[in-house]
Amino acid sequence: MSMHAVLKGLREANKTKIVMLVADGLGGLPIEPGGKTELETARTPNLDALAAEGTVGLSTPVAPGITPGSGPGHLGLFGFDPLEHDIGRGVLEALGIGVEVGINDVAIRGNFCTIDADGQVIDRRAGRIPTETCERLVARLRAGVKVEGVETLIEPVREYRLVVRFRGEGLGDNVADTDPLATGLLTLPPKAGDSSSERTAAVAADFLRQARAVLKDEHPANYLMLRGFAKFPRIETMEEAYGLLPVAIAVYPMYRGLAKLVGMTVVDPGKTLADQMEVARAHWDKYDFFFIHYKYTDSTGEDGAFAKKVEMIEALDAEVPKLRALAPDVLIVTGDHSTPSRMKSHSFHPVPTLLWAPATSRPDFVTTFGERPALQGGLGQFLAKDLMPLALAHAGRLQKFGA
Amino acid sequence: MSMHAVLKGLREANKTKIVMLVADGLGGLPIEPGGKTELETARTPNLDALAAEGTVGLSTPVAPGITPGSGPGHLGLFGFDPLEHDIGRGVLEALGIGVEVGINDVAIRGNFCTIDADGQVIDRRAGRIPTETCERLVARLRAGVKVEGVETLIEPVREYRLVVRFRGEGLGDNVADTDPLATGLLTLPPKAGDSSSERTAAVAADFLRQARAVLKDEHPANYLMLRGFAKFPRIETMEEAYGLLPVAIAVYPMYRGLAKLVGMTVVDPGKTLADQMEVARAHWDKYDFFFIHYKYTDSTGEDGAFAKKVEMIEALDAEVPKLRALAPDVLIVTGDHSTPSRMKSHSFHPVPTLLWAPATSRPDFVTTFGERPALQGGLGQFLAKDLMPLALAHAGRLQKFGA
Repeated sequence: MSMHAVLKGLREANKTKIVMLVADGLGGLPIEPGGKTELETARTPNLDALAAEGTVGLSTPVAPGITPGSGPGHLGLFGFDPLEHDIGRGVLEALGIGVEVGINDVAIRGNFCTIDADGQVIDRRAGRIPTETCERLVARLRAGVKVEGVETLIEPVREYRLVVRFRGEGLGDNVADTDPLATGLLTLPPKAGDSSSERTAAVAADFLRQARAVLKDEHPANYLMLRGFAKFPRIETMEEAYGLLPVAIAVYPMYRGLAKLVGMTVVDPGKTLADQMEVARAHWDKYDFFFIHYKYTDSTGEDGAFAKKVEMIEALDAEVPKLRALAPDVLIVTGDHSTPSRMKSHSFHPVPTLLWAPATSRPDFVTTFGERPALQGGLGQFLAKDLMPLALAHAGRLQKFGA
Repeated sequence: MSMHAVLKGLREANKTKIVMLVADGLGGLPIEPGGKTELETARTPNLDALAAEGTVGLSTPVAPGITPGSGPGHLGLFGFDPLEHDIGRGVLEALGIGVEVGINDVAIRGNFCTIDADGQVIDRRAGRIPTETCERLVARLRAGVKVEGVETLIEPVREYRLVVRFRGEGLGDNVADTDPLATGLLTLPPKAGDSSSERTAAVAADFLRQARAVLKDEHPANYLMLRGFAKFPRIETMEEAYGLLPVAIAVYPMYRGLAKLVGMTVVDPGKTLADQMEVARAHWDKYDFFFIHYKYTDSTGEDGAFAKKVEMIEALDAEVPKLRALAPDVLIVTGDHSTPSRMKSHSFHPVPTLLWAPATSRPDFVTTFGERPALQGGLGQFLAKDLMPLALAHAGRLQKFGA
């Protein structure tokens, strides 16, 4: 029996409230051998108090050794096994720039390219044209391309990248990429891999034919390629899975999009974490589950800016009292993955996590929030997908299993 | 999706090098209540330094409570779930004495026995004849038995035990043991359990008929029984699974054979651990993954020789600087199972494990290598099959999963 099936059978309706504060890329590494991580370096009296009163541990987002992208990282935190739920590349790219993807949509990553007179690809990225050129070309495509029978949306991403979304009935997403993955080759036709994707392939072929005509006198971006055809994934909503009314308070489009995939209501988050706290307060009575996303622990890690990441953690810590003041039944602070500033990238390292629940937390010996202290914590090392059942349990939302 | 399928999709080719030093039966137990284990007793400054700089934990070879044989123990370390990959007894027996098993072979354990005039088994082990007698009888069988259409290899093991290997096309291994498992019964015919094993059953029956004729005047070993019919298991090679070029530097035949099962190149290891280190150095540029097997932590444990096992651990520690001098990207020290000298046998206890990767290790608070310190380590308690994904991740050989 799947864990979600078990949880459904045990559901206990109540008014408890769960807050999940996700500090993106929270986990880190010391710069020097024997040194401290970013989180261990940061002065975090408020997080330390939660750690001391609550239970801490380390979350493995997908599986040992696996470095997650934002999609799998968040799916795990929302209680869905990232190995079982694939969010297609086109959908993630669309979500990342705030393009909505609904159940009748196919979202596709596009990139402008350069082809020669014979149609062979000379440059798969069209010389990395500036974003302004991308925007101008997208405007030309919008004006010049009209595919019959579907609603077509075209959006620039940056440089040579764009998103195409077809909306209509009967559009499968099993369509092959048109990128030949090497120069000196012709682009490939958008070939359907099953019968339910044949209409999508025909629509894409028509789109590409018209785009070729629109772009033919441009240089260097005289054509485009499509890849990562993807539909909205079939994932249960958090309401279906857990009986929670969830709200997402996230500033960046990607995380708002990921929240929508699991059925969260997305509200205007304002601009700063302080704004997000105020939004949580304002919506406190309307929802059961509050997903609050904080980006800057990841972006500073990606930049390799250790001291700046420490500062962003301290800024996060300073806002924590506002969450405590709301008196949630369960307050979780975690990350979707680690982003050590030493590596300037996402990493596979487990993510320090704390779960504070005044009525039900079993305290451990840990009194500070950090990677090494968390190794002694009561949550142990666990898979991220196990965090939601723990949250529901601590919130009194799960009945006894069996008699 | 299986973890191996995931790993294949994430493969990042690079030049990093991974060393896995397997101290067979490494884990132990204290002799006295409150005492130290063999590893905790040993003076191991070099392993302690690796533990302090790297990450430690405890590996569960198969599953909690399961005491592994060498086959499952090593399969787990090589990243294959021992519960999903069965290495047949005949193959293990053959590998243990250095008999090669290829894809067209069926390997079988044999044992000499005593039967009476009616063919009933009187002694299933032929009075535990000495190994010299076993060797003489095997020589007689080699001279007197000729099965048509297959190549037959017969090798003594020790006392009453031998190995028989048939090589030829169309030999399945689903053949029943001929040992009736009790005295006073007739031996059983080698009965095929499926149509693809009928030829093997016929070959075995012919072999047994001829062997009976050769041995009929011998005493007490006037016949033999066959059991554990097994083919080379279908296991991916480490190159297929991980994109690694692996080499095995192991002195004992069993471990060389196990390494071959997962596609490792087996090189002449010399005789001592010092020789093995020199062999690793000499082959350093040719391979990505170095499996170095050290037997004496297990054999001293099996002998119940606590002090001797401590000495063998200290001898291992003394060679560790030679591995560090090679500057591997990842250096793992672990065991395939525990062999507490107090138990004089393999055991189910988790195995102390360290993973040292200068570029990517997240340090924990642990500064010595031992069973109790490892409980506080950053690797936590993990299944042995998760060690290879962690090794690949620490070696930068896995791309991000999802976007």
